[in-house]
Amino acid sequence: MNKAPFVRAAANPLITPEQVRPWLPGFQVTCVFNAGVCRCGEETLLLLRVAEKPPAAPAGFLHVPILEEDRVAVRALRLDDPRWDFSDPRKVFDRETGSYAFLTSMSHLRLARSRDGIRFTVEDQPFLLPDQPLEAFGTEDARITRIRDTFLINYTAVSPFGITTALAETADFRSVRKRGVIFVTENRDVCIFPEKIAGKYRALIRPVPRQIGQARIWLAASEDLLHWGEFAPLALPDLPWSRGRSGGGAPPLCTDRGWLILYHGASPVDNRYSMGAALLDIADPSRVLAVSREPVLAPEAPYETEGFYPNVVFSCGALAEGDAIRMYYGGADRVIALATARLDDLWDIMEPAAAF
Amino acid sequence: MNKAPFVRAAANPLITPEQVRPWLPGFQVTCVFNAGVCRCGEETLLLLRVAEKPPAAPAGFLHVPILEEDRVAVRALRLDDPRWDFSDPRKVFDRETGSYAFLTSMSHLRLARSRDGIRFTVEDQPFLLPDQPLEAFGTEDARITRIRDTFLINYTAVSPFGITTALAETADFRSVRKRGVIFVTENRDVCIFPEKIAGKYRALIRPVPRQIGQARIWLAASEDLLHWGEFAPLALPDLPWSRGRSGGGAPPLCTDRGWLILYHGASPVDNRYSMGAALLDIADPSRVLAVSREPVLAPEAPYETEGFYPNVVFSCGALAEGDAIRMYYGGADRVIALATARLDDLWDIMEPAAAF
Repeated sequence: MNKAPFVRAAANPLITPEQVRPWLPGFQVTCVFNAGVCRCGEETLLLLRVAEKPPAAPAGFLHVPILEEDRVAVRALRLDDPRWDFSDPRKVFDRETGSYAFLTSMSHLRLARSRDGIRFTVEDQPFLLPDQPLEAFGTEDARITRIRDTFLINYTAVSPFGITTALAETADFRSVRKRGVIFVTENRDVCIFPEKIAGKYRALIRPVPRQIGQARIWLAASEDLLHWGEFAPLALPDLPWSRGRSGGGAPPLCTDRGWLILYHGASPVDNRYSMGAALLDIADPSRVLAVSREPVLAPEAPYETEGFYPNVVFSCGALAEGDAIRMYYGGADRVIALATARLDDLWDIMEPAAAF
Repeated sequence: MNKAPFVRAAANPLITPEQVRPWLPGFQVTCVFNAGVCRCGEETLLLLRVAEKPPAAPAGFLHVPILEEDRVAVRALRLDDPRWDFSDPRKVFDRETGSYAFLTSMSHLRLARSRDGIRFTVEDQPFLLPDQPLEAFGTEDARITRIRDTFLINYTAVSPFGITTALAETADFRSVRKRGVIFVTENRDVCIFPEKIAGKYRALIRPVPRQIGQARIWLAASEDLLHWGEFAPLALPDLPWSRGRSGGGAPPLCTDRGWLILYHGASPVDNRYSMGAALLDIADPSRVLAVSREPVLAPEAPYETEGFYPNVVFSCGALAEGDAIRMYYGGADRVIALATARLDDLWDIMEPAAAF
């Protein structure tokens, strides 16, 4: 009853960087992870985050990519320049401004298609590219929400201005239309509910405070998907595995017991990212009905404990198929994997919110 | 031509903490500052931020206030508890969570009324009190924007959940209706434009990024004042006096040359807060037309250089009266002061945006 309800697919990892062709000439795909997920016709689609790093720099330098006007430029930073702190493999800290000044890779969003949800064909060309100033460091971590015939894609737009959430939409995954920033810096891990509730669109958002407060999930509401308000913290308990930070994972799934949310949490000191589950009232998602005390999936497999950023399972999308939940997730910020749970097993391990 | 165009009122400081009666029994008013401003009938109204500190604690302790349910409680923190860092006089840092855990005072909003704009009578009772979980550390820094017969009041709502901006409205400054959080953590220094532009309400906002980017002014748009979007950074130059952080000050003033904005900036190392001026296109406020290279007011007078937080001039509201701009401001986070400029003098010192 207390074992983690998600079971890993035997074929894991499903997609690795070696299978993905780089978009930028001379660059190398280092990570393919954190994919938005949907069903479209007979296919399962993944909208992958593909991270590419620039060609190796001369000795004593690090190359970092940045979008300038309409092309990706590469800058060489001196490794012995006291201005830069290179201790985080994902980004370069600027001691002069007290802010991260560069990412070490450039991410874009790429489609992968499958008939069986296991064997995916990754497209050779990007689907959604960074191409504007608020995306100068890349586009990351898509979530897909289908509302009638439109697939909404929200993604993280990163630039020297900060980390924002932007919206795009497509009807067919051939063309895509960008709709601009919907949550201003610093906000990521946004999950839009797949239908209106009490006449309004709703979303889980994850604002990151600087001075006071913690990175936690809030609720927001909108009438047009472009302008958001009615902000309120979601009353999830802080648990040992989620106390460092938590945020939305897969867009909420409608079940006969309420909205099932699969969200991520990181432990405070060792930054170990796990997935948890909660159940929200179907008519009023600010009411938390039940919560998993332990993670429903925690990093244990080698492709989760070793990689670009070790000890991470991080989902951006899941599908409900009958009694089963198929959760796709990034492993160690490097590969795509899949785990499956039966709904009954999830209900079994969740405890009423009043128990926390 | 290059001297600061704002001239201090001879009667400065206009309001000091000694003139203000505490709201909470046993508390002491330590600061009265950062007032929203409007004309209402024959009167000039200031909506003051009044900060009160709890009764002195026993030796070895500090008292900190927090709203619990419907009353303000006082907690005693041990000064030798290694968990707390007391180095900032305004707040207590929690080394366990990496966040500020308490403020040292509780702020609310209080009205002051004047016939001449100089001699103010401060009301004995609060006008807008912290009374909900997202305001548990207080309500701060009001800005007032009149739109037709409604006075919009946006203010900073501070709580353990973070620093947010909330909206309230009044028709008469007797009753007030709270409308909830309109910008989620971390966001303050919001200035709503006094009329719709191209069919939408507009505001200057000041998101504070945690990882990437700086605290700078962005623009936002709304159709109903409650749901906001269309976020974009405002292209103000970084200047030596504003490079540390900048944010909105007075709500924009409509002039025959465009929107005059009086905004604050802080220098990077010594955190000296000054006021600057910029001119935005009347039909498209994302177009910056002109900017003051030097501050239009910088802390120099004793009530600006000495106080609760030294070296601060910080305005939350100004009035245009004929050819004059009357800017009310907080001095050293302790008192209310007034400085006046002629519009022509402001135009003289502003340089075209292309010069930066």
